[in-house]
Amino acid sequence: METLVMSGRPVADAYKEQIKEKVEAAQQSGKKVTLAILTVGQDPASFVYRKRLLKITESLGIGSRCVELPETATTEETVAAIRKLNEDPDVTGILPMMPMPKQVDGDAVGAALAPEKDMDCLNPANGGALLMGKGRWAACTPRACMAMLKFYKIPLDGKHAVVLGRSNVVGKPVALLLLQENCTVTVCHSHTKNLPELVRQADIVVAAIGKAGFVTPDMVKPGAVIVDVGINVTETGIVGDVAPEATEKASAFTPVPGGVGVVSNVMMMDAVVRNV
Amino acid sequence: METLVMSGRPVADAYKEQIKEKVEAAQQSGKKVTLAILTVGQDPASFVYRKRLLKITESLGIGSRCVELPETATTEETVAAIRKLNEDPDVTGILPMMPMPKQVDGDAVGAALAPEKDMDCLNPANGGALLMGKGRWAACTPRACMAMLKFYKIPLDGKHAVVLGRSNVVGKPVALLLLQENCTVTVCHSHTKNLPELVRQADIVVAAIGKAGFVTPDMVKPGAVIVDVGINVTETGIVGDVAPEATEKASAFTPVPGGVGVVSNVMMMDAVVRNV
Repeated sequence: METLVMSGRPVADAYKEQIKEKVEAAQQSGKKVTLAILTVGQDPASFVYRKRLLKITESLGIGSRCVELPETATTEETVAAIRKLNEDPDVTGILPMMPMPKQVDGDAVGAALAPEKDMDCLNPANGGALLMGKGRWAACTPRACMAMLKFYKIPLDGKHAVVLGRSNVVGKPVALLLLQENCTVTVCHSHTKNLPELVRQADIVVAAIGKAGFVTPDMVKPGAVIVDVGINVTETGIVGDVAPEATEKASAFTPVPGGVGVVSNVMMMDAVVRNV
Repeated sequence: METLVMSGRPVADAYKEQIKEKVEAAQQSGKKVTLAILTVGQDPASFVYRKRLLKITESLGIGSRCVELPETATTEETVAAIRKLNEDPDVTGILPMMPMPKQVDGDAVGAALAPEKDMDCLNPANGGALLMGKGRWAACTPRACMAMLKFYKIPLDGKHAVVLGRSNVVGKPVALLLLQENCTVTVCHSHTKNLPELVRQADIVVAAIGKAGFVTPDMVKPGAVIVDVGINVTETGIVGDVAPEATEKASAFTPVPGGVGVVSNVMMMDAVVRNV
């Protein structure tokens, strides 16, 4: 059986084309398209991520604005900064970098985001819409998983998808998006007892558990489709949640690196132009 | 093996005691506790439900207010009525009866509810909170399912729960609440292919599919716990989604009638006093 490697690059490229067209059309009609990134303090990981996003915005002709608040900023000050961006018609997307320093209530910051400018589903109103089956603006990573499956024409209707992980940012939203596509969905996590047995039943495995090589060959039904959301830093480089030997049993899988992560960043840009 | 019949009555009674105490304490400190029920038009089912709720409010010393808009009311008029109730400090809970007449945008009405007065999780902000693991104010029926399981001390951690049905009002929220209690959760629905095989794996079955006697004995693992949310009107009376023969294989089950439904109405009253 041949195994399809679901590379992220062509998926990302297809989205980038669409996004560029939207940006150009907006600019021609005099409308600005800008991603605002809000940082509080000096978290190095946030700055690495911001740098990567700024590179993509630039390549797509999307404007950017970096708002930097001091490490000592209060919740009120952070919310006020969000409100200012909400009201700015040039700003089409706002990403507050999480986690924030301890004294800042991250939930309050998320809830303050104008839902239509909320890039990563931090406002509960967008989470609620997702729950009610209007998941168009779920967070970027779950949307990237779905974009991969759709680009590579993986049949979803009636398939049994097993999601490993139940985080608010990946596991739960991707489970809802799969449900919306008529998958039967099982969510497994650290308390799951017969995990290998359950994963073996999956037509589609979504691994978002954050453990290098967690999914072993014995857990994979021959011919299953594997979406690997894991990004684990190891001595031998970045690896996914799925062991390489396990992907050999799949009919299709997303590689790590070069898979979901690549698409996820482009989904952020897709969100920036969503109302344009 | 003895089968535990998880009757709704003692669960409802235990909640009623708590609610009464809260209402009395509120009244002693001069605070009003009122459920406002908003109807648009003359849907008979809504009036039957309202009558039942009014009877319970009265029995618990909770005040009530019925707001009736004509069949021809617009979305704007309905939202305006909601806003007025939002601002009224005497009103602690608001229930707009769904479905509304066609010209009224039910989603807009739900979104207009003050989240803290939203009795049945119609405001997406409450749905989003549920998705993020803060499911204290999920809709009444899913909360009633959990209340049953807790009252009868059914172990949940690490158990495999299979939910039949994926509605916004029961299936999806109860799946999230079970996940929050560390269940492994599978959601099955009309597109599920190997449904009997999946249900047979369940330690806990939640049937919310709306089909009389849908769950047959061959689908039930001996000793499973069954929560039957179905209320199906048949020639022989009201029956659940689970065939009586199937409950015989269970270690515990909720009867229909007299099970989840009884608790669900009391959960509404619990929601009315939630901020008291």
